[in-house]
Amino acid sequence: MREEEVIDLIKKRLKMKNPDVLVGPGDDTAVLEYDRTHYLLLTTDCVVENVHFKRKEASLFQIGRKSMVVNLSDIASMGGVPLYALASVGLPTGFSRKEITQLLRGMQKMADAYNFDIVGGNLTRAPVLFVDISIAGKVEKKYLKLRSGAKPGNLIFVTGRLGGTLVRKHLNAIPRIEESRQIIKNVPVTAMMDISDGLSSDLMRMAKASGTGFVLKLSSIPVSADALRISRTKKEAVSHALNDGEDYELLFTVPSAYEEKVPEKVNSVPVTCIGEMTKEKRYIGLLDDLGVEKIEPAGYSHF
Amino acid sequence: MREEEVIDLIKKRLKMKNPDVLVGPGDDTAVLEYDRTHYLLLTTDCVVENVHFKRKEASLFQIGRKSMVVNLSDIASMGGVPLYALASVGLPTGFSRKEITQLLRGMQKMADAYNFDIVGGNLTRAPVLFVDISIAGKVEKKYLKLRSGAKPGNLIFVTGRLGGTLVRKHLNAIPRIEESRQIIKNVPVTAMMDISDGLSSDLMRMAKASGTGFVLKLSSIPVSADALRISRTKKEAVSHALNDGEDYELLFTVPSAYEEKVPEKVNSVPVTCIGEMTKEKRYIGLLDDLGVEKIEPAGYSHF
Repeated sequence: MREEEVIDLIKKRLKMKNPDVLVGPGDDTAVLEYDRTHYLLLTTDCVVENVHFKRKEASLFQIGRKSMVVNLSDIASMGGVPLYALASVGLPTGFSRKEITQLLRGMQKMADAYNFDIVGGNLTRAPVLFVDISIAGKVEKKYLKLRSGAKPGNLIFVTGRLGGTLVRKHLNAIPRIEESRQIIKNVPVTAMMDISDGLSSDLMRMAKASGTGFVLKLSSIPVSADALRISRTKKEAVSHALNDGEDYELLFTVPSAYEEKVPEKVNSVPVTCIGEMTKEKRYIGLLDDLGVEKIEPAGYSHF
Repeated sequence: MREEEVIDLIKKRLKMKNPDVLVGPGDDTAVLEYDRTHYLLLTTDCVVENVHFKRKEASLFQIGRKSMVVNLSDIASMGGVPLYALASVGLPTGFSRKEITQLLRGMQKMADAYNFDIVGGNLTRAPVLFVDISIAGKVEKKYLKLRSGAKPGNLIFVTGRLGGTLVRKHLNAIPRIEESRQIIKNVPVTAMMDISDGLSSDLMRMAKASGTGFVLKLSSIPVSADALRISRTKKEAVSHALNDGEDYELLFTVPSAYEEKVPEKVNSVPVTCIGEMTKEKRYIGLLDDLGVEKIEPAGYSHF
């Protein structure tokens, strides 16, 4: 089965009983009632040896760090902040005290940087190393952002520069917790998600959830230095930016009347307008010579 | 490294920053401030192919079910009820829609039985099937039970009958959510945990956390029919009850003055007094001929 089919199957089979569940499976995190002014956010994500990293190419510190980043990016995409993490680790035989400590140090580094606690976990034998993290976070009700809120005519923005992430960034990404909060507090964002599987796939998910299409101005997509370095042509670099995934950048939409309100940078991270949501449910890439091409969901698939 | 060493390492390395963390790593769940009258409980546990089940011996429905039960048992042992679950699944290639549906059905069966929602999850490729569940639950502040509260002289009780779990029970255990609540509401329980790794190992953990020792009356330990069936002698059956693990029964202590208050059954589950906590930090098994033997931590080790 393809990943999207599995996700559809899950959404269909899992019926929410509790009225406190505002958002169940399908967005970056679940959204639950918490207190008068906040929602509780729950999310889980897993990194598996030989699927998301190779032991030869990543230190245990980097693996521990990455296991947290992929979850923190989901919390950021809802507009929230992390509170508590659980870490479930599958360990092959023969790990030393030093190696386990390095893995923990990578996780704890993120917990310290973003001021949350790793409150529990689980250890089990496994044939390969995996680290499955769950994070509970919170968001002020007025700041919650879903992927489903985009409207036709809204402008599409991304943080950072995309593509070429396999060179370095997938192990060193910085979760956009602070950047998300700064943007949300200053601009009337209509939809937000993070780019984990690739701009093409993730923007299609946002459009699908919002009931829109989109037109991307391909030459506007901010391409990373690593994507340029591994490409022979500009076109190839843009293709990396569209499809590589593991960017852990923010993708969000804003009513066009507020275009001027969107800062060019938050902290030192560039914010770039790359296109527009459309009423017509087509996914279009616009070339500078005014040619068009159809955007395909060529991002990372888990299956 | 041995499992206890890893747990000690984790407890030492992870420093809690947030004053809302009442209990971090080391009990059956983490305990966090929630509202005026409740604590939030967070726990995670994972079942891995060829470690916790074999595909030939377990249906996918049973695997999905078990992945929930091991977590619900932790919620029960704190006195709580489940609210929300996250499911992170590692899938080898080639799973059909029907197979994934069966796995989900096993999980959903428990969500329906115990009235909670599976609000999110994650799917990833993996070399073997694993299901990592996180559950958020809650408990009234007045009903919270920790494993560290036992006092010398307290009587030790277990629910159900122990041992022989590999025959059937590890795939069919019933989490003691309702039984735990009934007991806590009627008896001044001082400490509680669930038996997952084996009575011997888990009672030692409770004694260690409480700063006590214990004396077990070995002939009082309720032995399951399956443990008897696979044993040639009574002694061998008791050894199964002490050490097999995966019972998912409750282990709890009560001041001796309240012995009469403890019901003989909750629902139809027997509740049995098996010994006493002691001031002297030794772990003793008492034989009927008045001989004694030292109890060794022979329960299941994850490493």
